[in-house]
Amino acid sequence: MKVIEGGLDAAPGVLTAGVHAGFKKRKKDLALIYFPEGATIAGVFTKNLIKGAPLKHAEALLKINSYYQAIMINSGNANACTGEQGMDDVQEMTKIASRKLGIEARNILVSSTGVIGERLDLSPLEKGIEQAVSQLDSTSSTTVAEAILTTDKMTKELSYEVMVGGHPIHIGGIAKGSGMIHPNMATMLGYITTDLSLEQDQLYQALLQAAEQSFNSITVDGDTSPNDTVLLCSTNKVDIEVTEPIIQEFTDALTKICQELSQMIVKDGEGATKFVEVKVNNAGTEEDAIMIAKSVATSNLVKTALYGEDANWGRVISAIGVSGIGNIDPEAISISFTADGGSVLVCQNGIGLDFDEDAAKKLLSNDEIDIEIDLNVGKESASVWTCDMTTDYIKINSDYRS
Amino acid sequence: MKVIEGGLDAAPGVLTAGVHAGFKKRKKDLALIYFPEGATIAGVFTKNLIKGAPLKHAEALLKINSYYQAIMINSGNANACTGEQGMDDVQEMTKIASRKLGIEARNILVSSTGVIGERLDLSPLEKGIEQAVSQLDSTSSTTVAEAILTTDKMTKELSYEVMVGGHPIHIGGIAKGSGMIHPNMATMLGYITTDLSLEQDQLYQALLQAAEQSFNSITVDGDTSPNDTVLLCSTNKVDIEVTEPIIQEFTDALTKICQELSQMIVKDGEGATKFVEVKVNNAGTEEDAIMIAKSVATSNLVKTALYGEDANWGRVISAIGVSGIGNIDPEAISISFTADGGSVLVCQNGIGLDFDEDAAKKLLSNDEIDIEIDLNVGKESASVWTCDMTTDYIKINSDYRS
Repeated sequence: MKVIEGGLDAAPGVLTAGVHAGFKKRKKDLALIYFPEGATIAGVFTKNLIKGAPLKHAEALLKINSYYQAIMINSGNANACTGEQGMDDVQEMTKIASRKLGIEARNILVSSTGVIGERLDLSPLEKGIEQAVSQLDSTSSTTVAEAILTTDKMTKELSYEVMVGGHPIHIGGIAKGSGMIHPNMATMLGYITTDLSLEQDQLYQALLQAAEQSFNSITVDGDTSPNDTVLLCSTNKVDIEVTEPIIQEFTDALTKICQELSQMIVKDGEGATKFVEVKVNNAGTEEDAIMIAKSVATSNLVKTALYGEDANWGRVISAIGVSGIGNIDPEAISISFTADGGSVLVCQNGIGLDFDEDAAKKLLSNDEIDIEIDLNVGKESASVWTCDMTTDYIKINSDYRS
Repeated sequence: MKVIEGGLDAAPGVLTAGVHAGFKKRKKDLALIYFPEGATIAGVFTKNLIKGAPLKHAEALLKINSYYQAIMINSGNANACTGEQGMDDVQEMTKIASRKLGIEARNILVSSTGVIGERLDLSPLEKGIEQAVSQLDSTSSTTVAEAILTTDKMTKELSYEVMVGGHPIHIGGIAKGSGMIHPNMATMLGYITTDLSLEQDQLYQALLQAAEQSFNSITVDGDTSPNDTVLLCSTNKVDIEVTEPIIQEFTDALTKICQELSQMIVKDGEGATKFVEVKVNNAGTEEDAIMIAKSVATSNLVKTALYGEDANWGRVISAIGVSGIGNIDPEAISISFTADGGSVLVCQNGIGLDFDEDAAKKLLSNDEIDIEIDLNVGKESASVWTCDMTTDYIKINSDYRS
């Protein structure tokens, strides 16, 4: 895999534009991803039972059709908890974009992110779309990455050239989200493009697997917001015979890209000062490993201890004990903290060790830390990525909405 | 029910003492609850798979015997994650207490709370027990309530005279815990005494039901620590024919006492400035109502919004959507905030209302707030109690252990 310039437009057949339409006061707030010759698209969506109108629309459409020509995204208002009116507004958005792009409305997918429970004011849309259409080109992925942000401090974008079955293909993507769910329920959004020609179901299976090990393995309090969406789009420009090994190579590369994007989200976490990988080894099943890693990675007590640079492994082992996974042996668990090449073993066979507190404190002063947990009951492993929990997190999230 | 003086010693047949033995630097740290003529005892324990040595000892003993003469509790060290040595130390504690009290070691239950993963230093015990034995009397329940505290800011103690089947009986109790799990994994402990004569299984069933609606319905991040223990002890002084209605009256009174004790724990929550009841009405089942209320009550985003006095109901409805309970209708949900006699309806039929933000902000400036959720899919209700999440919570929990 080779990093290349660009993001969404690394794959041929993708035009993009991000503009300021007026949903937000000043910042870019409307993005267009346009496929002049169409794209096959698959998506994964929030597990929250409360779903935003654009998400409901996209999820339903993707069950019927696999082929689309445009994705339109606005930030500033999520169009969630807006009832029938919200669904009507999504339809209206696709109609306006349809006229401006000269394509059919049913070939357009919509995402929204921002405040929930307030009607989306459509008045800025017509002019905004017009402007976006006029700016569409193959070098503006970054403007899309900007236009979908809410409280994110930085854009999240990358692209790779990857060899699959001896052929060079491209995968590029952007994402938004700032670790914890945003105060206004703003969303985790991800858009990934490729030129490898795949059926919708092949895209879906690859995305499902990649998302499980990336976007679903970062801690957002275990929560998902009403609008969380990741779309994978193929422009079908590289039309080779797709064998099982090629699918595997593609899925591996996609997983790596999704992991990098999701790690960027954690690093941009609200108030976060540390990036933490929770690695669970020798679990009975991979699912067990993931559940236990998530229990540790979402524990407020673990996250505040990391902020305090305190090797408080008692909180780690307690979070293991309440994960809901029964296949653990409290007397077989080992825990160590690792950073910058060093490592401190703090608990072995379920018993606290007499470790060097100063060395541990020094190690935990690093910005990137691994918590390694050995369950010693099986052979499966998994990692989950999280950040520390800080006074800034509380300040950001107790700020009044307006 | 009539509030009466005292706590554990409201029921005849209970002697208590709390002293400073030396597990902590200055504060009281050793408590003795002594039943000169014995007591029938039942207990409920942590659901955490990581269990402290005293808890494992007590849980196993209670399966074999129903009759005991003493409970000994130390604070300052939880004797958890201490392996075989920890179990040996519990045995040693009962032996020392046995000699000093002149009773059999197997008639003594032990609880510990404090730092985990460090061996309990038994050297202060002998002198401490001696002192406690010499101070045993029927008016010192408060000293026990003090001796079991860790970071709690106040003691939690109360007692009632209750009429069951026309007979006056007594129920009194103490508890410790400070809302969130304590930094050092210190524990939720509760001890309740009564004089109504009941079999161990009758005590257990009543306690199970009461704990579900009290200690298990306060938010501790859904977590339980390795040493959480509640014991219900009867001195059997009121020996009346126990009918079904009498059991019910007793259970109702016990539930009320457990609720009051658990609410004291929430009010003493780490860094908490607000006491919040999350009420879920018209759920399909009571279990559904509890799960949904817990999902809202443990949401960091809901708790930080409450700290910010922000009627951010989007976070409430999102927490409802991720509770794991499928029997909800997003378009039937109503949410209101209630305090001090006033109420603001913010969401009806899943749609945000255009409510008076100033009125809502004023209402949320109260110290005690209800979040009322109407699911409109059934007829069952439940309440869960929680507190807001503040910058002080982070400060307390990111403080280094020492």
